[in-house]
Amino acid sequence: MRGVDEELLMIPGPTFVANSTLRAMSRQMINHRGKKFGEMLTECTENLKKVFRTKNDLFILTSSGTGAMEAAISNTIEPGDKVLCPIYGKFSERFKLIVEAFGGIPVELPIEWGAVPDSGQIEEALEREEDIKAVTVTHNETSTGVRVPLHDIGKIVKKHNALFIVDTISSMGGDHIPVDDWKIDLCISGSQKCFSLPPGLAFISVSEKAWEVINKTKRRAFYFSLPDYLESYKKDPPEQPYTPALTFYYALQNSLRLLLDEGLENVIARHHKMAQATREAIKALELELFPEREETCSVTVTAVKIPKSVQDKELRGNIQKDHGILISGGQSALKGKIFRIGHMGHVTDKEILMTIYALEQSLKKLGQRIELGAGVEAAMKVFM
Amino acid sequence: MRGVDEELLMIPGPTFVANSTLRAMSRQMINHRGKKFGEMLTECTENLKKVFRTKNDLFILTSSGTGAMEAAISNTIEPGDKVLCPIYGKFSERFKLIVEAFGGIPVELPIEWGAVPDSGQIEEALEREEDIKAVTVTHNETSTGVRVPLHDIGKIVKKHNALFIVDTISSMGGDHIPVDDWKIDLCISGSQKCFSLPPGLAFISVSEKAWEVINKTKRRAFYFSLPDYLESYKKDPPEQPYTPALTFYYALQNSLRLLLDEGLENVIARHHKMAQATREAIKALELELFPEREETCSVTVTAVKIPKSVQDKELRGNIQKDHGILISGGQSALKGKIFRIGHMGHVTDKEILMTIYALEQSLKKLGQRIELGAGVEAAMKVFM
Repeated sequence: MRGVDEELLMIPGPTFVANSTLRAMSRQMINHRGKKFGEMLTECTENLKKVFRTKNDLFILTSSGTGAMEAAISNTIEPGDKVLCPIYGKFSERFKLIVEAFGGIPVELPIEWGAVPDSGQIEEALEREEDIKAVTVTHNETSTGVRVPLHDIGKIVKKHNALFIVDTISSMGGDHIPVDDWKIDLCISGSQKCFSLPPGLAFISVSEKAWEVINKTKRRAFYFSLPDYLESYKKDPPEQPYTPALTFYYALQNSLRLLLDEGLENVIARHHKMAQATREAIKALELELFPEREETCSVTVTAVKIPKSVQDKELRGNIQKDHGILISGGQSALKGKIFRIGHMGHVTDKEILMTIYALEQSLKKLGQRIELGAGVEAAMKVFM
Repeated sequence: MRGVDEELLMIPGPTFVANSTLRAMSRQMINHRGKKFGEMLTECTENLKKVFRTKNDLFILTSSGTGAMEAAISNTIEPGDKVLCPIYGKFSERFKLIVEAFGGIPVELPIEWGAVPDSGQIEEALEREEDIKAVTVTHNETSTGVRVPLHDIGKIVKKHNALFIVDTISSMGGDHIPVDDWKIDLCISGSQKCFSLPPGLAFISVSEKAWEVINKTKRRAFYFSLPDYLESYKKDPPEQPYTPALTFYYALQNSLRLLLDEGLENVIARHHKMAQATREAIKALELELFPEREETCSVTVTAVKIPKSVQDKELRGNIQKDHGILISGGQSALKGKIFRIGHMGHVTDKEILMTIYALEQSLKKLGQRIELGAGVEAAMKVFM
């Protein structure tokens, strides 16, 4: 629960960090090439694999999630390699930019913002365009509030002998993403979303098939060189190639224990319930969800169209000023057109109710005709 | 001062973090694109510029120091570009590896480990080899315990129209390095050394001349793209292109205030005194410094040859087991041949005395003929 001098962050990351995790971070430094660190690195890696549901190698990078996206691309894509990039928001677009930065050729598959790519579209693109080396998908596109149904895409990508690279930065640990079952070759996540940690660590799992490609790639990366991470992890005690952000490992260790103690299935079910309650509240207030179809709504962030009679800045400004609650606006082309409520990490029914209440109050204050209490009531129904 | 359940880290990083800095890190997350973060980013950047003594742009990266080394190279060096890399230890060698990873051609200037490159050797190399685009120098080579006299190298590099890229990861904030006076185009540092912070942040200053090169470079980097950092910093409020490690900014803000409150000149003088006391103690114990010449000894880490009759593992093992003090061994070719005492960050006369005392006890225990107390006495003389 937030302190009186803190704002409640209901944005799609960074998310609230548990007090026990904050306290873990005030521990003193240790030798990062010693036994104690090796044990902590091993525990964190193994527990992350449980969340990723993978037997693949998994590495922890000192960077934001974007660093892990770069690791996936720069270790596999050489100048001239073609990468299929469905683009349906700011983060799926980022893959394209990284592919370009490393000399790859992005084959764009543009999809309207608010919609998601489906397996049929990806199959078509793979059949149309020869020699696609990899396909990038952002599982949870926070900029539009959608999540991509991933389960059958991996099979198609595999059939075409391409690598399946998936960004789960804002969904892993909050949604059902079995990496191995879904044949994800490089799965990326970050610390500051569902893992309820400060930003600063990124995670990446690497399949055997991905290793085959990586080992053939003339590398164009150093800090994010995955073979170096593997080599260091195999040492006794296991270590990282470059000085790791020790403090965040203390936090990660604690946060993963909290997550696994609650139980991955329970955590995921909680996220689904928070998302459902938020959507029901939005609909009860006669507001419109931004995603085209409710089945493809994100379970960690809800994107809502701003009513025409209301100004984005006033709406979010009032919620912040009057209630101490931070929600997000739209990004890029969606600036001023949508607002977004993040409900990931340690968010519970109480935070959702507070936020919906504040939203109602603020809409009313701005002259919007709504039935006060209708949103809160709809959310509570989901919780009961 | 360390707690009873903590080891005293006298290694060349990570270094001890002050309690007030540890406490600062237990603050809750804030919005990283809001005004509060913008103010913190501005304060940290401006205070870092004071330590760097630069009017150049300066950026804070979420990565280890190696990430900032990669930023310097990947933003300026294109495939086929020649870079002069004097190599005299593990970290100066790292520049060469990064240049290669990005397709550049390292022109190696090998120098015996324990010695340093001088301006004459660099001038000669620049005259011998045409079209050198950049020169890399590691100011403080922690692997061998030397520091390079930098003051006149920048002028020579400038005369040959090359970029001067300097790694001050383990010396900035502890030694005298006026970036602008010494004409350093890209100056790199990291959080976990003299800045007395956890590892996880890196710093890089960028001169006008460096910008000219960067702006002409077809970029081969994304996460470390310096133009993106500049663009984000110019926003109102200033921000970072990718989610920054918030927690470490709380720490950085506190640590820079501590540093500037003590006074940069005083902090540097303290580091010089700690180094001198350590060297005097080593000599009084009739041990041999590893660097060829005492004038080129590092002020943040002292490298000492291990007497032939003593085993490295036993020596350091006893110091750790009997006294709870951690010192470092040698790296790469120097494994088992030297030990290294780090004295950077918040280290004071008390920690030096504890360490020398433990070293004496351990040497004696291993049957080395030394005059017990001679090291402590020699160090105390420097402090008096």
